Amino acid sequence: MVGRLYWLPQITFYALHYDRRNAMGRLLIKGDIITSTENRELRSIEDGWILAEDGVIRSVTREKPDTDGEILDYSGCLLVPGFSDLHLHAPQYQYAGLYMDEELLKWLETHTFPEEARYRDLSYAEKAYSLFAEDLRKSETTRVSVFGTIHRNSDILLCEKLENAGLAGYVGKVNMDRNSPEYLVETMEDSIRDTESFIREVNERFTSIRPIVTPRFVPSCTDGLMKSLGELAVRTGTPVQSHLDENLSEIEWVRELCPWSENYSDAYFRNSLFGQTPTIMAHVCWPNDEELELIRRTGVYVASSPSSNINIASGVAPLRKFLDMGINVGLATDVAGGSTLSMFRVMCDAIQHSKIRWRLFDESLRPLNFAEAFWIATRGGGSFFGRTGAIEEGYELDLLVIDDRDARSTLRPAFSVAERLEFYSYRTPGDNLKAKFVKGIQLF
Amino acid sequence: MVGRLYWLPQITFYALHYDRRNAMGRLLIKGDIITSTENRELRSIEDGWILAEDGVIRSVTREKPDTDGEILDYSGCLLVPGFSDLHLHAPQYQYAGLYMDEELLKWLETHTFPEEARYRDLSYAEKAYSLFAEDLRKSETTRVSVFGTIHRNSDILLCEKLENAGLAGYVGKVNMDRNSPEYLVETMEDSIRDTESFIREVNERFTSIRPIVTPRFVPSCTDGLMKSLGELAVRTGTPVQSHLDENLSEIEWVRELCPWSENYSDAYFRNSLFGQTPTIMAHVCWPNDEELELIRRTGVYVASSPSSNINIASGVAPLRKFLDMGINVGLATDVAGGSTLSMFRVMCDAIQHSKIRWRLFDESLRPLNFAEAFWIATRGGGSFFGRTGAIEEGYELDLLVIDDRDARSTLRPAFSVAERLEFYSYRTPGDNLKAKFVKGIQLF
Repeated sequence: MVGRLYWLPQITFYALHYDRRNAMGRLLIKGDIITSTENRELRSIEDGWILAEDGVIRSVTREKPDTDGEILDYSGCLLVPGFSDLHLHAPQYQYAGLYMDEELLKWLETHTFPEEARYRDLSYAEKAYSLFAEDLRKSETTRVSVFGTIHRNSDILLCEKLENAGLAGYVGKVNMDRNSPEYLVETMEDSIRDTESFIREVNERFTSIRPIVTPRFVPSCTDGLMKSLGELAVRTGTPVQSHLDENLSEIEWVRELCPWSENYSDAYFRNSLFGQTPTIMAHVCWPNDEELELIRRTGVYVASSPSSNINIASGVAPLRKFLDMGINVGLATDVAGGSTLSMFRVMCDAIQHSKIRWRLFDESLRPLNFAEAFWIATRGGGSFFGRTGAIEEGYELDLLVIDDRDARSTLRPAFSVAERLEFYSYRTPGDNLKAKFVKGIQLF
Repeated sequence: MVGRLYWLPQITFYALHYDRRNAMGRLLIKGDIITSTENRELRSIEDGWILAEDGVIRSVTREKPDTDGEILDYSGCLLVPGFSDLHLHAPQYQYAGLYMDEELLKWLETHTFPEEARYRDLSYAEKAYSLFAEDLRKSETTRVSVFGTIHRNSDILLCEKLENAGLAGYVGKVNMDRNSPEYLVETMEDSIRDTESFIREVNERFTSIRPIVTPRFVPSCTDGLMKSLGELAVRTGTPVQSHLDENLSEIEWVRELCPWSENYSDAYFRNSLFGQTPTIMAHVCWPNDEELELIRRTGVYVASSPSSNINIASGVAPLRKFLDMGINVGLATDVAGGSTLSMFRVMCDAIQHSKIRWRLFDESLRPLNFAEAFWIATRGGGSFFGRTGAIEEGYELDLLVIDDRDARSTLRPAFSVAERLEFYSYRTPGDNLKAKFVKGIQLF
């Protein structure tokens, strides 16, 4: 009883107000912390403390920091850095999980393009993007880089929904002026004009969501469009995202379309769409050595989407090689090539597929282990957005609170914090996210 | 109001009693039915009716059958045949989802064997098997073929838990008399005596759970033990289960251990453990042509475990070849090589891995499509247990009722029943099982 009398007033004393909607004030978070180190190892503190000020982590300690602030006690829960989903298509979410029996080019024609065309209708976009943003809010993803459609106003709506849901990252208005069905194509002039005004409006209106230049992929953009988009990106300092080396037929097609380029990567590079501003290239299943070297040299980020690459039978990216070469790499769901928004699932798929690749295709690249995949999913991809993806001093507070107490109510000796993370990841978690912070703002 | 007055008494009239615990009486079930045909196609009836009598399906129709009986109205829900999990290790369930960074033989030594040794203790087995049976009860699995441990009395407990949970299938007392740690090994004499008494007791005490002879795999059974187990199986008419061609090092080891055999399959075959009674062989990632022919000729079932085969980096089984050759094949979680009990997950993994295998390793075997994987997971594996795994006249009532109304609350035009099944399978379902029947008994 003496202990209790002693502690109660002390807790009350420290429980000052933290502004959850604006990330203002000082916050002390208690729980079982796990994060990735720079060396791609797991570092954990059981019953540790995170101190955050105005949305930025100030310290991560075993002992309670000697400072005042609001206390959030998540004892017994896992505290995990937020995941970055480096590549996904918002307008494809409505059918994610369907039509998995086809390959990329046919799949685009039969399912993707007709669905994307519906986003010309703002009222459809309003409803569909609301559902998308809400599901993403509830997911383990904190940072995103998203493709919209060619429809500028719908893309603005998408930004609005994501910003209001509390997510952070990039949204791109998609550009397509060739090899596209007539119900989903723009002129080069419209495409550039709309992109420019999209960038301006997003920069003016939103805080956490930023614009990104988004040529769909080389086959759907004329040389002229690519050149203008590259100039626009450089002139406005806007990042770039696109697709690269996803599928063998696609690569062959690009070779025919761009005889003036050395390879697929070079087709972007010569148009200032490859590292001249921060750049994400999705997939990269089949890069050749020259491309790998160019990717490394330009600092381009690879958004690897293992689930999607297998669903539409594209291939398995050489993740080990990316790591060994020091290439920037993150993971991505690539909805709707990927069937869910779960980055836990993507992370485990990355490990599993690296094992198949090693066993069946190339024994020189050993499989990823869990710690490496976790690094890619959090710290690797997170670095595209600044200091995010780790629970470490100076990083923005992107945090998941996972209540895994049910999941580990087993009979074995207590699991370590690292074991609990692996256990939770592989058992395919459901709705056990108890709280989520993005840039210090609490989403739930 | 007239319509309502007209319908209400009619529903009451037909609502006669069905004994849910003993599957006695007549049951009319309404919902969106989907099943696999003999030709591995999907067949569905929206708003259809299943009529079952005493646990057996009597008709599947679009119109309501003209007969009395208790009505279960699951309108708007999917009615799906139960899944058969042809291979899993009950004593490994406590750590399923952990230690995925190792290959088979090392993984067995470091994690599996120490854990299995704990089942010598009946009070541990009591607790652990209760949790296992309860989770399996809640899963989409209706039929199982399960490995226990070498501990006869714990294995009996496992049978009791599974039977009480309402599941049906086989449980095996594991045999190991060589190449095993000293804390988890038997003498040949003890192994045979315990297996014989295990078979007797299970046959006497249980109804839905039957015994199965279970040499762990060739490396852990002496020639003498295998010979005696084969004789026992044949003499008592007991089925057999074991592991085959999982991993390349394991196959090499078997070659050294059994110079008298043509190949791994032959080592079982010569000991009457390969089709002389109904037989399940798990994995079969690396069969050679002679083995494939022997498997086909003897009617041995392959229990393919795609998730597990990748987790411990064993390989990817040639499922297309099994289908083309008319080999009996089902799917399996292989917990704890597989990390979850979800057969939906295993089914999607089977498709995905067949795509990688095709793309990276052997273009002659085209990938599985969804309908084929669903056939293997339900009808293919189900046939090991008799007439199970389909919603069809004469089949036992093994049924899942899936409430997918949330999952499909999208904006697109109404999904077909077949699309809903694929959508639900890939989106990694959580707790949307609304009801489950095994042999006509309602588990929940």
